[in-house]
Parts: sequence; C-alpha cells; structure tokens
Amino acid sequence: MSSSAVEFARQNHPRFLNELKDLLRIPSVSTLPEHAEDCRRAADMVARELHRIGMENVRLIETGGHPLVYADWLHAAGKPTVLVYGHYDVQPPDPLDEWVSPPFEPQERDGNLYARGAVDDKGQVWAQVKALESLLAADGRLPLNVRVLLEGEEEVGGEGIADFVASKPPELKADFALVSDTELFAPGLPTLCVGLRGMIYTEIEVRGAKTDLHSGMYGGAAPNPFVALAQIVARLKDENGHILIPGIYDDVVPPSEAELAAWRSLPFDEEHYRATEVGSRTLVGEPGFSVLERTWARPTLDVHGMPGGFIGAGAKTVIPARAMAKVSMRLVPDMTPAKAFAQYKSYVEQIVPQGVEVEVRLIHSGDACLVPVDNPYIQAATHALHEVWGKDTVFIRSGGSIPIVGDFARHLGVPSVMMGFGLPDDNLHAPNEKFNLTNFELGIRSLIRFLEEAGR
Amino acid sequence: MSSSAVEFARQNHPRFLNELKDLLRIPSVSTLPEHAEDCRRAADMVARELHRIGMENVRLIETGGHPLVYADWLHAAGKPTVLVYGHYDVQPPDPLDEWVSPPFEPQERDGNLYARGAVDDKGQVWAQVKALESLLAADGRLPLNVRVLLEGEEEVGGEGIADFVASKPPELKADFALVSDTELFAPGLPTLCVGLRGMIYTEIEVRGAKTDLHSGMYGGAAPNPFVALAQIVARLKDENGHILIPGIYDDVVPPSEAELAAWRSLPFDEEHYRATEVGSRTLVGEPGFSVLERTWARPTLDVHGMPGGFIGAGAKTVIPARAMAKVSMRLVPDMTPAKAFAQYKSYVEQIVPQGVEVEVRLIHSGDACLVPVDNPYIQAATHALHEVWGKDTVFIRSGGSIPIVGDFARHLGVPSVMMGFGLPDDNLHAPNEKFNLTNFELGIRSLIRFLEEAGR
Repeated sequence: MSSSAVEFARQNHPRFLNELKDLLRIPSVSTLPEHAEDCRRAADMVARELHRIGMENVRLIETGGHPLVYADWLHAAGKPTVLVYGHYDVQPPDPLDEWVSPPFEPQERDGNLYARGAVDDKGQVWAQVKALESLLAADGRLPLNVRVLLEGEEEVGGEGIADFVASKPPELKADFALVSDTELFAPGLPTLCVGLRGMIYTEIEVRGAKTDLHSGMYGGAAPNPFVALAQIVARLKDENGHILIPGIYDDVVPPSEAELAAWRSLPFDEEHYRATEVGSRTLVGEPGFSVLERTWARPTLDVHGMPGGFIGAGAKTVIPARAMAKVSMRLVPDMTPAKAFAQYKSYVEQIVPQGVEVEVRLIHSGDACLVPVDNPYIQAATHALHEVWGKDTVFIRSGGSIPIVGDFARHLGVPSVMMGFGLPDDNLHAPNEKFNLTNFELGIRSLIRFLEEAGR
Repeated sequence: MSSSAVEFARQNHPRFLNELKDLLRIPSVSTLPEHAEDCRRAADMVARELHRIGMENVRLIETGGHPLVYADWLHAAGKPTVLVYGHYDVQPPDPLDEWVSPPFEPQERDGNLYARGAVDDKGQVWAQVKALESLLAADGRLPLNVRVLLEGEEEVGGEGIADFVASKPPELKADFALVSDTELFAPGLPTLCVGLRGMIYTEIEVRGAKTDLHSGMYGGAAPNPFVALAQIVARLKDENGHILIPGIYDDVVPPSEAELAAWRSLPFDEEHYRATEVGSRTLVGEPGFSVLERTWARPTLDVHGMPGGFIGAGAKTVIPARAMAKVSMRLVPDMTPAKAFAQYKSYVEQIVPQGVEVEVRLIHSGDACLVPVDNPYIQAATHALHEVWGKDTVFIRSGGSIPIVGDFARHLGVPSVMMGFGLPDDNLHAPNEKFNLTNFELGIRSLIRFLEEAGR
C-alpha cells in the first residue's frame, strides 16, 4: 500500500485537517435562505483549492439555487474517466442547545472532529480533493481521467444538479462515478454501499377557521387543525409502522435470498444498536423484518415537525387557523416518487376530517436505486480497501437517499462506486455530528489507492 | 339615565379613549418572560390612575408572578361593598403577520379600536376605572363601597390572585363582585354571563431516540415522537368531537330545560356564525347538541400547538428526539380540574405507542362555575343595562374560563355580576383583536349606572 501519493498524504495530513476545519467554519446550510451567501463561499473555497492543486477547467456552474463546482483533468489517454461527486452543503444545525461545541466551530475530541458537515459531506469531499492533490503532487499526473462535480443542494433535494445531469452535458462523460457520502458498516470494516432508498418530502397543510380563535369561546364548534392533522397522521401508518396508504407496497421488490444471507452475516447487534445509536426504549417497525431490512429495503414514513399554532413557553388558549405537518417517505426499488406521491396525496385527501381543508405539497423527491457490482471499478475498490484496511469489503445498502446515484445511472449510464468513511454513530443530521479522524486519514489513503487501481 | 357622573363620562370620553390607547401600547404579555417588566409597567399605570382619581390604599401586591393591583374607597356607610375585578395582562400577539395594524400600536378603524388586549381585558378594565373616576369626579364620592382587585396573570392561569383570594384577606371582604371580562351576546343586546367553563391546560411530551436521527438511516427502526403524539391525540377525541377519555362525562350536569329554552330564544344564526365568526367549511362537535350547548355546557378538548422537530422552511430529514403537544380541555359543572386531569393523564399513559416515553404535565387549571341570579345585584345590573341599552338583558353562559369567579364564590362567598361589553367578533386571543368604540362608551355608562343602582 505504499505509493508516493500515499506518502505525500501521510506527510501533509496535519495541513489537510486544518483546511477541512476552515471549510467546516462556513455555515453552508442549503435549506435556509439566509445562508445562501455561505453556500457560495463554501463552493468558492473548494473551487479555489481544486485550481491550486492542479485541476483544470475549474468553474462554478450556476443553477436555480446554489452553484455546482466543476473541475477536470483529462490527460490520461487510454484510461477510464471517473466522475467524482460530493456535496458542500450541510443540514441546519438546530437544536443548537444540544451541541457540546458550536456546530460551526470544529473541535477535536476523543479522536473525532465535531462540526455540522464534518462527515456529511464536507469531510468526505475534502478527502476526495486531498486524494487528488496527493496524486498530482507526488506523481505530477493522475492515474486516470478525472471530472469533479460537487453540489450545494444535496440536503434540499439537489434539483440543480439533477437538471444539469439530465441535460447530459459533455463535461460529465465518464465511465464510472465515485460517490463519497456513505459510511462503514462498523469501525474498521471496509464497506461499499450498493443500494439507496428514494424519498418524497411533503407538507400537509390543514386549514380550519379563517383566523385563530379563542379555545374557550369556540371549543366545541370550530375545527381544530392540529387535531385533524393528528387524525390524518395517525392513519398514515399503524402502530407497527406498516404504512396504510393503499397500494404503497405494490412495487416493493424484496432483496434476493443471497443478499439477505449476506446481511445476516454482518456484525450487527440489534440490542447494541438500540442502546447506543437510537437510545429509545424499544425499536419499532414492521414485524417479520429485521432492522436492516426495515431500514434498507422497506418503505417508511416519518413526520419531521408540525409547524403552526402556539409553541412558546406557557399557555395560549387558541384554536389555530392552520397547522402543518412535514412528512417524508423513504422509497425502495421499484417504487417511484411520482406514483408514491400520487398514492399518498390521494389517500390523505380521502381521510380529511370534517370541517377542515387540506393541501398536500411535494417539496422534493429522489429515486431509490441499486447499483451493479459486476464491474472492474468495484473490483478496484475492494482491492484498494483491502490493502488499506486489511479486511474484505462488505456490501451493504443505506436507508438514506442520494438521488444523484440514480441520475448518474439513468442519464449518464455510469455505475457509481459509493465509497464513504462515515460511522454509524456520526450523528448525521443531528447535534454533535462528527467525523472519525482515523477514517478521514484512511479515507484519503483508500481514495488514492482506489484511483490508482482503477487507472491501472 | 342622566346622572352627573354619566354626564362627566360623556364630556371626558375623548380623554378616556386616549388613556386606554396608552395602556394598550404596553405589551403586557403575561406568558412570555421577556415581557415581565411590561406587565409591571401596565400594573403601575393602572395603579397611578386609581390613585389620581381618588381611590385610596392603592398598592401593588406582590405574587410569585406579576403583581396584583389593589385600591379601595370605603366611605359609604351602610352601603354594600363591591369587589371590582379585571386583568391588565394580555395574550401573546402571534401570528404577527396576520395583524392589519401592529398589535401594540392601537388604531381606530370602522368604529373599533384594534390592539392586543383592546377588549380582553384592558378596555374593560379601563371602563371600570373610568366609571369610578366619573362617579368620584361628579359626586365627590362613590355610591357604595368599592374595592378594586386587578391581576396580571389571567391569561396564564391566575395563580397569584387565586392564592391571594384563597387566603381570605380582609381587603377582599365584599358583598358581590363586578367582573368585566365577558361580551354581549349580540351587538346592542345587554347581556349578563352567568356560567363559565373551567379548564385544564396541559403538555404532553413524547420522547423517542436519545437524539435527533437521520430519517433515512433510522426510518423503520427508530420511534417517531410526532407520529406517536399524533396517535395519542387522535385517540383523545373521535371525529365527532366526543372525548374518548373514560369517565370524563360522568360529572357533566346538563342545563335545565328552562335554561335551554332561553338559549333557543337567543338571536343565534348558526350559518351566520359559521360563515362570519368561524369561517370554516363546516362546524364540528358532538351531534345532538346545539352550538351553544357544545360551547357553553359540554366539555371540549383542543390542541394549541405541537412544538419540537423541524419547523423551518424547506426540508430537514430528521426523526426528532422529542415532540410536544399543548392540549387543553374545557370543563363544565360539576367536573373538577383535579379529577379531569387525573382521568386524562391516566388515559394518555395507557395509550402510549410502542417505543416512546411520555410525560403529561398540568400547566394550569380553573373551575367551571354557575353564578346565582336571584340577588339584588343582578337586579340592579339588569335595571341599569335596560336604561343604557333600552332592552331586556339576556342571561348567557360563556365557553371561556374566568377561574376567579369560582374562587370568589368558594373562598369569599360572594356572587359575581359578569357584566362585559365585548362582541362575538372581537378576535379574542387572535390577530386583530378589537373593542367596539360604542361599547367602550356605553360600557362606562352602564358601569356607572350599575354602581349607582347597586348603592341605591
């Protein structure tokens, strides 16, 4: 596993880490309009660095939202071309008071780097950039042709990149994609993700009276939108987590027996997972399916918040005029967002309680996908990972959604290698998000060796 | 209806109105800690005015929360003593963006004065103070003995005044109470309120995972507190508004046939009420009961808001660790808050969905009450009202809660005359709260004549 690029990375690692901290200090929260300028600052910083390390044709590509970052290096004649993907935007940091250190002031503790975006996805993007830097600095060239495409709207549906990819621009001609936005199944266990869930993110808005009303004067006559919304939500899935929307399971394709057998052999302790990762009294979900099946291969439905009404301290005796629920569903192959949303919307409109009106809106969506594993890039990846981590690679799915993987397959015809270095307890989308410092370092090394193997 | 005090009020009305606007400019929102100083400023302003007009022993009485305002004038030997009650605190003004003019910048439009607290209850308190001023200024004395007791925590449960009243202090020795915090049944129709609903205001907090989790990674395994809360709320009452808590209707005493007959003769048009006051598609509530029965004589349950989770614009794919519902019930005679809360809490704890923990908290409560009408003070009131409004008084109940009325009866043994001058469309507890300017003026006149009649 010694290459001169790996050696360069080893020697320069303290600088790499400091640079990552600078990137993490930029609060590039893509969903919040007040952080639009921060998103652009993050894009600029990554673009400048790509230029500095020797990538060419570096530029920001404008979208309807936050810009894409593009760069390439195409001087490896006869070698394949990789499309390197990651995202520089991050989730909102709230609830702020649960962070041990502030979300945008990166802090090292216990072998981890804590910050919003540390692992999702700035740390992994930086690992990609530093792998490219190490190869260019040590060898004066790259072992294969490289195109880099980073986005700033992954956490809000990635509409900009989706449109760009769908237009099949020549800049994206490639043989395979490298996507670094996933995690190891367990510490020290090299992992490739080969399946992702899709999603629809929606809002249900319920309207009752024309204005907020006094709950004493009108309680018993005026409809209560929160009660109506609760009645709707309670009918979306049963207490076992089984979704009650008619037809929603029709297109679900179960994993093969071989895949299920492989999942059963993974080092997974349900009680440990419950106690340390989730921390709830019990786990929930459909009976008859394992936790991995439920989170990887079954559609699920969650409520993220219910805005409206009075949410301050103390008491306000109001019947709110309006209430909203933010509801999303995760989809699995072969479900499609369009059909799932149509089924969901139609069902919600059928179960509207008396007295209220309802509007169901789609905020964004993404396709579920399974990626093929019978290609030389997956072989190169497992080879590189074995060298760096000393173990055979496990193939898993993720319950999360990376819609771009489906877009790469559908529009560009390229398979994705989802090689990421997060850990299950990295607090993605939650307070105290972190990136394991060893994984950052071995991640860079793995990416260097993978690119070398893929270009062999 | 000409008395010299009435004539004084007529001549000084423009000043009275300007003074009320000054009081309305103080954002004395009792439930919000950041407005504690404003509550004190409002108390100070009323106390200074009571002193200026000639009331004696004016002082603020400290409580655990916002202060009480006390004043008296006890030189009418041989005459009864009235305890004048109102409150200087107001509801929070949100949602701010629905106000036509800012809530704490009073504005006259179309014969109404718009501001938070205009009718609930600063306008009515000011009508009381101005009635006392008119009597003192015109006659040099009051027609009966008067004690004034105003509070600043009516909108948050009135704990301070409840404790003070329960201690039966000599300052509160009186023959009857005058409570001005109610409304006319219809414009121009003199009204006395003789029944109030009680209430319990509660919070249900549901806890699932130990921290917020990514809904992709954990959806299907981690419990969702909002879904659990929706399942709980959906089981609190059925789609007809019938409360499902076992035993909750056991102590409900139906109105007498005579009272129901009187209600049926009131000028009430259900369709007009739906269209103009509520504005919802249909009205809701228990079949078999009229709107007035449902809002005056039946217990009801409402949800005011569901704090927690992600409530910003856009999308955050989080399974929140916690969710809360603010839930209140209105109670009718002979229900008691203690028993109703115990039944409610026990039921909620029995229906907790799998995987989550729940905590049920009582924020505040108040007793329902019916006040006796066979006393000379009610006679004096109807006489005065007939003089000022030229019509017979109707006796109604209110769906709202004024717990102090029950406290006055229980601890001080005094009946309350609930004489108020709001209107059904005054937007209590809602944006664009208002007080009809004619009602403010005729209200002062009615109070003057009532006090003269009661002291005759």
